[in-house]
Amino acid sequence: MSSFDLRLSTLRAAYLNGTMTPRKLIGELLAKAAALNPEFHLFIHLLSEAEIAPYLEWLDTQDVESLPLYGIPFAIKDNIDLAGIPTTAACPAFSYTPAESATLVAQLIALGAVPLGKTNLDQFATGLNGTRSPYGKCRNSVHPEYPSGGSSAGSALAVALGVASFALGTDTAGSGRVPAGLNNLVGLKATKGLLSTAGVVPACRTLDCVTYFTATAREASELLALTAHADPRDAYSRRNPQWNDARAFGNLTRFRFGVPSKLEFAGCAESPALFAKARAMLEAAGGEAVEIDFAPFVEAANLLYQGPWVAERYTVAGELIEANEEAVLPVIRDVLAKAPGATAVELFRAQYRLQALKVTCDAALESVDFVLTPTYPRPVTLAELERDPIGPNSLLGYYTNFMNLLDYAAVATPTAFMKNGLPWGVTVFGRAFTDQYLLSVADTLQRMSGVECVGGNAPDASNGRAAANDRIRVAVCGAHMQGLPLNRDLLRRGARLVEATQTAPHYRLSALAATPDGTRRPGMWRVPDGGAAIAVEVWEMPSLELGSFIATIPSPLGLGKVELADRTWVTGFVCEPYGVESAVDISEFGGWRAWLASERK
Amino acid sequence: MSSFDLRLSTLRAAYLNGTMTPRKLIGELLAKAAALNPEFHLFIHLLSEAEIAPYLEWLDTQDVESLPLYGIPFAIKDNIDLAGIPTTAACPAFSYTPAESATLVAQLIALGAVPLGKTNLDQFATGLNGTRSPYGKCRNSVHPEYPSGGSSAGSALAVALGVASFALGTDTAGSGRVPAGLNNLVGLKATKGLLSTAGVVPACRTLDCVTYFTATAREASELLALTAHADPRDAYSRRNPQWNDARAFGNLTRFRFGVPSKLEFAGCAESPALFAKARAMLEAAGGEAVEIDFAPFVEAANLLYQGPWVAERYTVAGELIEANEEAVLPVIRDVLAKAPGATAVELFRAQYRLQALKVTCDAALESVDFVLTPTYPRPVTLAELERDPIGPNSLLGYYTNFMNLLDYAAVATPTAFMKNGLPWGVTVFGRAFTDQYLLSVADTLQRMSGVECVGGNAPDASNGRAAANDRIRVAVCGAHMQGLPLNRDLLRRGARLVEATQTAPHYRLSALAATPDGTRRPGMWRVPDGGAAIAVEVWEMPSLELGSFIATIPSPLGLGKVELADRTWVTGFVCEPYGVESAVDISEFGGWRAWLASERK
Repeated sequence: MSSFDLRLSTLRAAYLNGTMTPRKLIGELLAKAAALNPEFHLFIHLLSEAEIAPYLEWLDTQDVESLPLYGIPFAIKDNIDLAGIPTTAACPAFSYTPAESATLVAQLIALGAVPLGKTNLDQFATGLNGTRSPYGKCRNSVHPEYPSGGSSAGSALAVALGVASFALGTDTAGSGRVPAGLNNLVGLKATKGLLSTAGVVPACRTLDCVTYFTATAREASELLALTAHADPRDAYSRRNPQWNDARAFGNLTRFRFGVPSKLEFAGCAESPALFAKARAMLEAAGGEAVEIDFAPFVEAANLLYQGPWVAERYTVAGELIEANEEAVLPVIRDVLAKAPGATAVELFRAQYRLQALKVTCDAALESVDFVLTPTYPRPVTLAELERDPIGPNSLLGYYTNFMNLLDYAAVATPTAFMKNGLPWGVTVFGRAFTDQYLLSVADTLQRMSGVECVGGNAPDASNGRAAANDRIRVAVCGAHMQGLPLNRDLLRRGARLVEATQTAPHYRLSALAATPDGTRRPGMWRVPDGGAAIAVEVWEMPSLELGSFIATIPSPLGLGKVELADRTWVTGFVCEPYGVESAVDISEFGGWRAWLASERK
Repeated sequence: MSSFDLRLSTLRAAYLNGTMTPRKLIGELLAKAAALNPEFHLFIHLLSEAEIAPYLEWLDTQDVESLPLYGIPFAIKDNIDLAGIPTTAACPAFSYTPAESATLVAQLIALGAVPLGKTNLDQFATGLNGTRSPYGKCRNSVHPEYPSGGSSAGSALAVALGVASFALGTDTAGSGRVPAGLNNLVGLKATKGLLSTAGVVPACRTLDCVTYFTATAREASELLALTAHADPRDAYSRRNPQWNDARAFGNLTRFRFGVPSKLEFAGCAESPALFAKARAMLEAAGGEAVEIDFAPFVEAANLLYQGPWVAERYTVAGELIEANEEAVLPVIRDVLAKAPGATAVELFRAQYRLQALKVTCDAALESVDFVLTPTYPRPVTLAELERDPIGPNSLLGYYTNFMNLLDYAAVATPTAFMKNGLPWGVTVFGRAFTDQYLLSVADTLQRMSGVECVGGNAPDASNGRAAANDRIRVAVCGAHMQGLPLNRDLLRRGARLVEATQTAPHYRLSALAATPDGTRRPGMWRVPDGGAAIAVEVWEMPSLELGSFIATIPSPLGLGKVELADRTWVTGFVCEPYGVESAVDISEFGGWRAWLASERK
């Protein structure tokens, strides 16, 4: 194997068949990183032989098959703690040496992954370009006139240059997505609170996320499934309603996606066509595009740096600035200049405005499964950033700044290369906890686009079905159908009708005795032989509502799995044997409505 | 009927059998209110004959049975809009006349309720005692030396003095609970966002709730079920996961409740014994008391007035204070004095601290169904408040100030009278969205205590079962049981084992063919005759997790209802007929574990 294909599956196979060992690979990668660093400045600290030895020695005692990330090399943004190694946040005066690793780093190491070093970043993770660091400016992995993107600049480079299988970034305003877009990577900014931020230097503590950079969406899916756990060390950690295991990752079925009705490309000649191509791919994959008003998203984005949220950054860097102004880069001081004067009254007013915007933006998201945008309006050059360190940086955040303020999940994914060779990509975002679904969309885009992923490989074909979203589909065959008495139990839970269809021709339907409340209901059950196609309606409701819905369902009915006419299976009403034994078989009517109509005659 | 028994059920019966009309009752009540006002100062504005006429005329055109609140008189705290009537917030200089009613007021009127007038309050709802008003001090309904409690002082008095069936208050720091405790009322401070606050003068907009004062918990349950709807006019409105309909109100079954390990009674001679009696009642009702550390709740409470949240109140009253200091009462100006100087940095730091406290407090709540506290450490006298307008007021908030900061639901309920005749009560609080469950607890306490409710009546006996909480119980009979392969799917969802028991003796059990993942699973189904008692485990999980859990269940299995040995029904695993037809009946083993053991032999 080439040491440039570092995908999780490739390394796992190489370790299992003995063509590679962690010791050999890590040695090669550290040497490669050291050779790249003078030009790319990707690492602030590369682990020494002595520092990395304990990890390798521990792996020697472990079985390849027992650890899901056995021997997988990863890089850590230098605002995330690795025990015993200084954390600088790209500010030498701020540096401290943690005794303990960040929770997420410790989790990854316990799963077998091997940390290579601490990567360069825009100081205090304040920036989207990767040049705001006393440890050197990070140029782009492909094109020397462009930046790597930031703030997780070095982490993106570590994966893009084939030094690490994956890298940890952080993302408050776009720091995990912009560098992914500029370097042909998948950047996963998972739902706030899913990945622990304990042991991370805060930027805005109420907004910060740790992110994964990977070559493929499939790898990000695996990593998320392995490490999304509630963390008692992180007060902002959130319970994961279990939509984030790898079973939720797979192929798309019919879906609806939002596209901003007005797009901002900042005059870029190529981006409009590249975006149109990405949109067309999703349509070809079974998606229906819906135009949405993007203005409220942009207004929310503007709150992040123009409003009092800069005070949140000041809670971290403020003391240092007050004690020793020169310790912090001038551009960072400029960004934070308004922070000390911001009042609590202003902050409350801004939080009210944000809440109002969130209502509007949430409503737009309710009608779709996700939204597609470019990752940034256009790439900016190192020369532009040299002339104006703020303006071009802000431009890069146009499609990213609102994400954490509005509590959405997002994945940046590559879909093209520009004529100058620079990678180009899109971002898909959606409601909190739809992460694996968004990764499935990213995977579809990455595979359909035919863009070679980092290492020169095509992503593996996907299998399974991306079934799990934060919505659940329920097939109903009786009194819950549109216009019938129990339909209200669906409507009040925010359910919407997806389709009126039939089951596969393997079911029977009975009219049950009336339930205690007098409602007539059918029982539907699958039969091994014979059977008919029964009319059903498929409704979709927020999965959070299913618990209260099931409480309303009396015996002998229940929710099981029903096979539809198109041979797919969905959650739906089933009936226990005792319910149908004495009931009248009405299968010949083909459905409950038809039988009701016949009764009325 | 006496016009003093104004319970919803009493009035409904009187209207239906024609012994009373809304016109007659409302006339009597307005006269009564006018007579009481010089002493109690409960109304700032009583509706004139001309103002109330349109409501009565509309009712004349309606059918009693068609409107759930037909002719029910209610009072409105004067920081909540009633169209065409001035809203003062007890500050004449702030007064404005809204064109539109608050959403909740409009809802109630549309349901048939009749507004009587606008009630007195602590200015800007800033206070817990009811004396901070230029419209007069509100004395207690029972004892002339005590205050009504505030800030919803007049609203509590309207119900307690028999002028209204129910009244609307607001509650940011305890304003809907303290006056309930002091006046023998149920005070429902529902989960933030459940009842619309559109058209309400904010106190702290991120924390405010509208509340109901009623004579009985049953009435509060009815009102909540009728009016808890998401409101597009209110950016803080939240989707109700449907645990708040009246079906969730009823009798308690086995439960666990928290009690502070250290209680604060501020030297009160009677309160400790009264609290012990309330605790003993709950134990007698099937509850297991668990001591919890109350210190983090108290620390959160202290953030409300000692921290930067006062700046939130300043967003409302600040402009007026700056323009015309004298327009605002000196005590309110004192409370808000620190607000203009509070910085955004301080506010972020306080919000971090609150989040950390919430994690600790939430963990304490995870282990119980609700927490029981006194409503206040001890009552305070009007004379005490005269001497010190701040200290005794703060004491009243000891058990209430943290509630909205921590996002809990709470119900204050009467349980006793003190020797001097003053009402005394407790508060039960719990996780967001457990409102109807908490009302069931309040109902139990109110009925067990034997305290006469307002109007001199005993609360009606309750029926049904308070089944719906934010947790759902699921009976498992196979691979999900403790130690078996799929038990992880319960544990990762935060489920806990409630009991190992058996079904009613009406079930059969089969060993199904292995599922695609190779897991052996049983199918259990109810039979009309014969059958056996099958070993099952009852697990309890957050209902929000059920949607993702059901996605893991393959055909022929499903979740239906299972009858347990104690004849109660719970959600549990059932099996479709086709699954059991060809499977091996293993009912004779009495359970899946026993069959597994026999297989291993």
